[in-house]
Amino acid sequence: MTDRTEAPVARTVLQQCVRAKLQIERGMVIYICFFKGATEEILPKMVSALLNIRLCESDSGKLVSVLELPGNLLIVPQATLGGKVKGRAMQYHANIGKEDGLRLYNGFTDLCEKEMKSAVATLEVQHGTYGNRQVLQLDTNGPYTHLMEF
Amino acid sequence: MTDRTEAPVARTVLQQCVRAKLQIERGMVIYICFFKGATEEILPKMVSALLNIRLCESDSGKLVSVLELPGNLLIVPQATLGGKVKGRAMQYHANIGKEDGLRLYNGFTDLCEKEMKSAVATLEVQHGTYGNRQVLQLDTNGPYTHLMEF
Repeated sequence: MTDRTEAPVARTVLQQCVRAKLQIERGMVIYICFFKGATEEILPKMVSALLNIRLCESDSGKLVSVLELPGNLLIVPQATLGGKVKGRAMQYHANIGKEDGLRLYNGFTDLCEKEMKSAVATLEVQHGTYGNRQVLQLDTNGPYTHLMEF
Repeated sequence: MTDRTEAPVARTVLQQCVRAKLQIERGMVIYICFFKGATEEILPKMVSALLNIRLCESDSGKLVSVLELPGNLLIVPQATLGGKVKGRAMQYHANIGKEDGLRLYNGFTDLCEKEMKSAVATLEVQHGTYGNRQVLQLDTNGPYTHLMEF
């Protein structure tokens, strides 16, 4: 995921949260954006990395994965993450097209749901609607924002 | 800021918000992390870029800068942004040391405050304390998360 020279095909920002609306209690928020060149092939690798990386603080203070917490997942499509600065504006030329983006986003949320449910049946995956404006309300506790590219 | 081959010395995530506690109304949240090699020299360029980039939606729907909005600023130190994936864990070896980080963070918040106040005297800059755990509560409206590296 790092130490490589090719351009990334997806960018994610992860935040542990105490509570987030579009409603989950305790878990992780993933902001996600796909770039041109992204294909279904990348999805299993992304989901596995995101669900298994140890970034969530358990009650004992130990860092565990969102699956181990166990915590819920809120997935938020965030095309703005693909922006590149051009003068005083952001441009989004590297972003994937809308149809491909929607297909990959749906594939991503489906795969997350499948992996979460097969690990802990009671876990919830909530996700925003691709291409829609949505209000997000979020409580975080401490520095928990991480960036991962794929 | 983009199209260059050297490693970045700072990474920021920007979110427009309706409301954020550590309390500001309407404005922008900046998460900030400095890497090894960052010096005071970068600060004026960073502050100018962050305060002048047109990422905030005004009441008329036009994209304007946080200064033009005019909106307040909430700055959140976020060392976790510097993480690199290593197996199932994040490592923070690229992050700047604590003393240098604190100095740069203070320089950054001071400069933001100076620029904001000199543009619109009533604007507020709130910021988290470097190195402390703090709860952040945030309402965003639509896809507004951007990444900028310096």
